[in-house]
Amino acid sequence: MKRDDAVGRDLADPLGHLRNRFELPDGLIYLDGNSLGPLPVGVGERVAAVVTDEWGSDLITSWNTHDWIGLPARAGVKIARLIGAAEDTVVVGDSTSVQLFKLLVAATRLRPGRRVIVTDATMFPTDSYIASSVARMTGSEIRWCEPSDVAASLDEDVAVLALTHVDYRSGRMHDAAALTAAAHAVGALACWDLCHSAGVVPVELAQWNADLAVGCGYKYLNGGPGAPAFAYVHPRWHDLLDQPLTGWLGHAEPFAFEQNYRPAPGIAKVLTGTPSVLSMSALDAALDAFDGVSMAELRAKSLALTDYLIALADEHLTPYGVTVEAPREHGRRGSQVCLRHSEAYGLVQALIARGVVGDFRAPDLARFGLAPMYVRFVDVWDAVEQAVAVLASKEFANGEYATRKLVT
Amino acid sequence: MKRDDAVGRDLADPLGHLRNRFELPDGLIYLDGNSLGPLPVGVGERVAAVVTDEWGSDLITSWNTHDWIGLPARAGVKIARLIGAAEDTVVVGDSTSVQLFKLLVAATRLRPGRRVIVTDATMFPTDSYIASSVARMTGSEIRWCEPSDVAASLDEDVAVLALTHVDYRSGRMHDAAALTAAAHAVGALACWDLCHSAGVVPVELAQWNADLAVGCGYKYLNGGPGAPAFAYVHPRWHDLLDQPLTGWLGHAEPFAFEQNYRPAPGIAKVLTGTPSVLSMSALDAALDAFDGVSMAELRAKSLALTDYLIALADEHLTPYGVTVEAPREHGRRGSQVCLRHSEAYGLVQALIARGVVGDFRAPDLARFGLAPMYVRFVDVWDAVEQAVAVLASKEFANGEYATRKLVT
Repeated sequence: MKRDDAVGRDLADPLGHLRNRFELPDGLIYLDGNSLGPLPVGVGERVAAVVTDEWGSDLITSWNTHDWIGLPARAGVKIARLIGAAEDTVVVGDSTSVQLFKLLVAATRLRPGRRVIVTDATMFPTDSYIASSVARMTGSEIRWCEPSDVAASLDEDVAVLALTHVDYRSGRMHDAAALTAAAHAVGALACWDLCHSAGVVPVELAQWNADLAVGCGYKYLNGGPGAPAFAYVHPRWHDLLDQPLTGWLGHAEPFAFEQNYRPAPGIAKVLTGTPSVLSMSALDAALDAFDGVSMAELRAKSLALTDYLIALADEHLTPYGVTVEAPREHGRRGSQVCLRHSEAYGLVQALIARGVVGDFRAPDLARFGLAPMYVRFVDVWDAVEQAVAVLASKEFANGEYATRKLVT
Repeated sequence: MKRDDAVGRDLADPLGHLRNRFELPDGLIYLDGNSLGPLPVGVGERVAAVVTDEWGSDLITSWNTHDWIGLPARAGVKIARLIGAAEDTVVVGDSTSVQLFKLLVAATRLRPGRRVIVTDATMFPTDSYIASSVARMTGSEIRWCEPSDVAASLDEDVAVLALTHVDYRSGRMHDAAALTAAAHAVGALACWDLCHSAGVVPVELAQWNADLAVGCGYKYLNGGPGAPAFAYVHPRWHDLLDQPLTGWLGHAEPFAFEQNYRPAPGIAKVLTGTPSVLSMSALDAALDAFDGVSMAELRAKSLALTDYLIALADEHLTPYGVTVEAPREHGRRGSQVCLRHSEAYGLVQALIARGVVGDFRAPDLARFGLAPMYVRFVDVWDAVEQAVAVLASKEFANGEYATRKLVT
């Protein structure tokens, strides 16, 4: 395969123009959208206006005049479209960890008498830590399962099945519709973590009939570093949902300053404290990069990109001891590809030094997220060429990589 | 009293120059720093640099190169100085509600066998709602007390005394040192909400020997709308503290991606999810407005401002049926003064229309926060003059105030 082939694919790409919606540094090949999405065009202007005009000039009145108070719901509507959810079922706020805590506690309360939370042992650690804390506080226990073994772990003791849709290491995507149905078949709820799916693979919460979901705003939604997370609750639970972080903005009448908590109707009861307006405005503006974009087209390009990287890696990188870690089956693949190598840390660092940004996931994975809105086929080709150069020269063994950076 | 007197006070004010550290709109009298502090000089530039250079150009590497990962602790050090806390005892993140949930649950775990949380029935509602949720989840109960009656409510069933230092309505300040000692005398912990104190009245957590504290970043700390909150834990509890929102950034080694939670040493175990870098950077920059400022001098000016407003209101506003709600005793007074009036909502709206911004607190309070860094004596004089005009003309009865705004 030649680079011309990659150039040709880009010329034929119907989504090629979407790259202009992002402020990507010249010459950088950014394959780390699954850790931090790049800056979308227009976000800087929006944030500057929020700081200077809304906060600086209009001050406290902006809660009304610029509808800051409606921001968690407005941003939620934009996300709902990307995850196949009805309009008034998603709110934005807090972190994924905090949102997950709220929804898992609520799930156990919706299934009193059942005391098992089933979760996959390969989940992103924060999910495991939070699930364990929820189990401890609610008198439940965690039943760990293997990703291949979820359905067999379900029985009538299970209150909630909590899974990550796309695995942050292997890129394996669960069959969410089937597993939601399996949970329902035993009377359990299904709660999905969409951190590595929202905005990049087909998510159809309503079609799946999912009960609950969370996800972060800073990966494929491109909302900025530490952007607020989102929470989804199926309308059938809006009346009954009883979540534990009962802050004033989830109250039916926050400005009545009542002594006792009365939850707001609908999804608003998932709100807790005052929304972080600056970070949330950045996410809200960033979501406009998805305007008019079809998730089906994004998915088609994502699969073409991952197919291409897998093929190039199979051919050019396996001779250097690299194992390609990505599901071969399209229906089970997220939008990332990992390269397993004993010196993955040094490989990632050497690639960054050469302008190809992926990230390291302990102990031995070099992970590359292929965001179809801005990653080109030539980026994939060039990244593999650089990886060959690093592996052939053993640049990964550079002494400066002996001391690992704090954030890897 | 004449306006010239106010002008003279401003000329003699040793802190008068601090007003230049804020971007205040021309002609606006802003007495609402206790709901949202104004924009400090330099914050817009810092936020723009974080968006454009750190996120836009340096992308994921900024976690290391711009030390985003250290931001919660760095901002915490700046706040620690303002609240009389040791350097490594404060972290920034989440909302006040979420931080309070963490610390109150932790408090009940530090006092197993005790099942009472004592709290003041006049607390800001989010604190009451969260305390009630904590009680429910930990098998505890709330013992509500009157602010005048706290010590009498303490006994050996009490796990934690949770109080707001300055009451958001009356402006009454608790004697935190004495009440902390009273809690300790029965073996309970003391947890302080500093939302209406941090940055404006003397807070001496170490001297008080307080166990735990929380506070928000967007009032007198001027961190911007919905700025992250902070949490304080006395060093004696750093090893034992066991908080329930066990997110990955509170783990001893977040990037080891272990399956089981191992808390970080020290105050870092209070962290939960990924920090909201944009909002937190704004707060971090805003805190520089306090550089070189003595809290004792701020307090002296705050008392002078509230004395002045109380005197003017007593003389000019009580004839119109206004009751001045502020503790007369300096030692019990926060940095705000409320005017009680049956038409307080219309009064506040009419004053806003005249360029004097305070806020309404249901059912009948017009609240004015006097932030000594930027409020002048002439602002107080002019505000009272405008209030007289509104009350004399009954402008508060303007029909457009019949429909209340969403955020009041």
